Amino acid sequence: MKMTLEIKVDDLDLFTKVLNATATVLEDEGTFVVNPKDGMTLRNMDKPRFAMVDLKIKPEYFHGDFKCDKEYKISIQMQDLKKILQRGGKEDSLTITLDEEKNLLKFTFEGRVKRQFILPLSEPEESTLPDPNALKYDIKAVLFSGSLTDFIKDASIIGGSINLYAEANKMIFSSSQDNREVKIEIDTQSENSAAKLIEAEGTHEALYSIDSFKNLILVDQAFSEVQLTFTSVRPLHLLYTDARGIELGYLLAPMQPDLDDELEGASSDDYDDDEDDDEYDDEED
Amino acid sequence: MKMTLEIKVDDLDLFTKVLNATATVLEDEGTFVVNPKDGMTLRNMDKPRFAMVDLKIKPEYFHGDFKCDKEYKISIQMQDLKKILQRGGKEDSLTITLDEEKNLLKFTFEGRVKRQFILPLSEPEESTLPDPNALKYDIKAVLFSGSLTDFIKDASIIGGSINLYAEANKMIFSSSQDNREVKIEIDTQSENSAAKLIEAEGTHEALYSIDSFKNLILVDQAFSEVQLTFTSVRPLHLLYTDARGIELGYLLAPMQPDLDDELEGASSDDYDDDEDDDEYDDEED
Amino acid sequence: MKMTLEIKVDDLDLFTKVLNATATVLEDEGTFVVNPKDGMTLRNMDKPRFAMVDLKIKPEYFHGDFKCDKEYKISIQMQDLKKILQRGGKEDSLTITLDEEKNLLKFTFEGRVKRQFILPLSEPEESTLPDPNALKYDIKAVLFSGSLTDFIKDASIIGGSINLYAEANKMIFSSSQDNREVKIEIDTQSENSAAKLIEAEGTHEALYSIDSFKNLILVDQAFSEVQLTFTSVRPLHLLYTDARGIELGYLLAPMQPDLDDELEGASSDDYDDDEDDDEYDDEED
Repeated sequence: MKMTLEIKVDDLDLFTKVLNATATVLEDEGTFVVNPKDGMTLRNMDKPRFAMVDLKIKPEYFHGDFKCDKEYKISIQMQDLKKILQRGGKEDSLTITLDEEKNLLKFTFEGRVKRQFILPLSEPEESTLPDPNALKYDIKAVLFSGSLTDFIKDASIIGGSINLYAEANKMIFSSSQDNREVKIEIDTQSENSAAKLIEAEGTHEALYSIDSFKNLILVDQAFSEVQLTFTSVRPLHLLYTDARGIELGYLLAPMQPDLDDELEGASSDDYDDDEDDDEYDDEED
Repeated sequence: MKMTLEIKVDDLDLFTKVLNATATVLEDEGTFVVNPKDGMTLRNMDKPRFAMVDLKIKPEYFHGDFKCDKEYKISIQMQDLKKILQRGGKEDSLTITLDEEKNLLKFTFEGRVKRQFILPLSEPEESTLPDPNALKYDIKAVLFSGSLTDFIKDASIIGGSINLYAEANKMIFSSSQDNREVKIEIDTQSENSAAKLIEAEGTHEALYSIDSFKNLILVDQAFSEVQLTFTSVRPLHLLYTDARGIELGYLLAPMQPDLDDELEGASSDDYDDDEDDDEYDDEED
Repeated sequence: MKMTLEIKVDDLDLFTKVLNATATVLEDEGTFVVNPKDGMTLRNMDKPRFAMVDLKIKPEYFHGDFKCDKEYKISIQMQDLKKILQRGGKEDSLTITLDEEKNLLKFTFEGRVKRQFILPLSEPEESTLPDPNALKYDIKAVLFSGSLTDFIKDASIIGGSINLYAEANKMIFSSSQDNREVKIEIDTQSENSAAKLIEAEGTHEALYSIDSFKNLILVDQAFSEVQLTFTSVRPLHLLYTDARGIELGYLLAPMQPDLDDELEGASSDDYDDDEDDDEYDDEED
């Protein structure tokens, strides 16, 4: 058997956190696309098709320990992956190897002891989802360390859904149900503000499921800030970026209509023209 | 809308602990009486009517940030209150405001972000309960830091009920069920004793529900000592006092007869004559 | 009442851990044999009769505070014992006293307060189990601090059962189910190895229930190493030893045939001849 895909992870901490968050959103199967140029990527919708995860772990993240001769589509049970990653110790490195012949993915932790976990591959999902980074927006903001987590927890007390509103110098997260309400108003121009507005064209407002936001708490705590872009009519896009080479995008459809219509039935007007991420999609049916 | 009731809480920690404990006992609705002289008070029985909470948060506790022009009766869902208080951060202050017109209570946390929670008011309970501080007793003791919590946990292993016995220099907490027993004997005169007897006339003994005691563990851990007064026949009275202006009283009926008969059907003999806490009760039906 | 059995425990921490682990394995009743020579011992099978606990707490462990005039058989509910031991504080000493007349065991914690728990005795189990230390083996190894806990947790992700393999310089713990696998390979000769092979005659391999292993995690974390002896056909024997005078043995039957046949129906060939631990068994029926 010729070794065709072998990835070594030294920085297990962040790697584990983003994949845990991804597993929490996707619930069961996840399809990774691995290729020499983009590294390890995953673009999948969650089961109810409300949200989409767009994960990119660039080859740089693996410090040269990224051996990959062509593009591979690897589909695995995300809950199995999550459990395996939790077994990684502080001193361990992790090597992920594909056995194409046997249709298996191997995870080898090496520390004081060598431990190897093996997962079977599933049939990869073939649907191509558009690049969330190409989605048009009118509001662009940055939320600082843990603010989004706080807002989600605040809204969870009330339940139901999260309403997001933004205009020139203001963002409001709110939620109301059974005469109970919560309202978090951010003056984005004040010093030490929890958020900064970078672009704001007009006023925008939309409603999102709290549960979809809750899946993000784990990853939100792992990054120092998150970029948020949205409009009243298109999905909300959250983008977590780590300088070591990880990008985790999260696309969330407004509560009506659902993300399915939004994304797959989207008119080309919703996306910018400079989309070129489908470079490796040619092999698909 | 004229602002008629506005309370600012700087010391959220103790405030949150006593209200959490109160919410644990009361389960659903709680009725606060707020007036310029006594501050924020609550005197309610628990649902099975075994126990009574008597909470007083004096105007001083709010360091002058206590704006109140007359007496208000404010009834809210205690579990909602508990959840809201848990969202207070270390750096936050909390302002509680009544909107009489809309029948709402507003909780505004101010820190790096301004967050406002709104709860609807319920119909206040109108029954007047007697002042537990006026209840006659023959035994008066002080239990030091966490001792009561320990005794409750010890008794919980055995289950059933807690038996309390006291005489001149001795207090005994005990519990027995299915041939299992626990007995905690305190020599109140020994150095470093867990309790000190202040008054002890005769020997007294009574039985209480362990579950009613368990509700107290949270608040018991927040105070450095608790005053306990009781007799064989009248309810047990626990009193937590904090010099900053908080008093939390907890009245617990012996297991037979129940507190209802004890308190509401109590003969005037059970209470001292200097009761004057009903000064503001005139407006009631 | 003449005091006939009184044991004082100063080092509550380890004592509590080994008895907690024993209680976890046995679930309900446990029978202690206490005598002047061997101290406090227990040799009981678990409920499904897959595993056996063999606990010895020598008189030395109690630093001379071990008063015992003859052999006693004491049977108690292990879950009650576990709960009582959890109530021991850091500063407490514990005195265990038998009241033969009343058929009770008393646990007295002494710290700032004197707390006494009393448990009723049950009818002791009379079956005599063979000494696991006399069981023949071909593989003898030592696993270092927490390694076994790690292997059990690794295998638990996959589920089903644990396969143990050993030959000259190698030990392999593995588990597989539904195309998922884990394999932990230990080069017992490498520096800093997680295990050391002391004796290895031939190659041996056997399958054990993961759940039976899981019961050991608590005790495995309390000791710095564990001795493991096994063959392909006889039960696995784990032995935890603490220099202060505690030995905890754990015997685990391979998954087929079960321990019952293995132990009770064992031919004398399975055991060495120097068995002399039945010195006190004469009084049994």
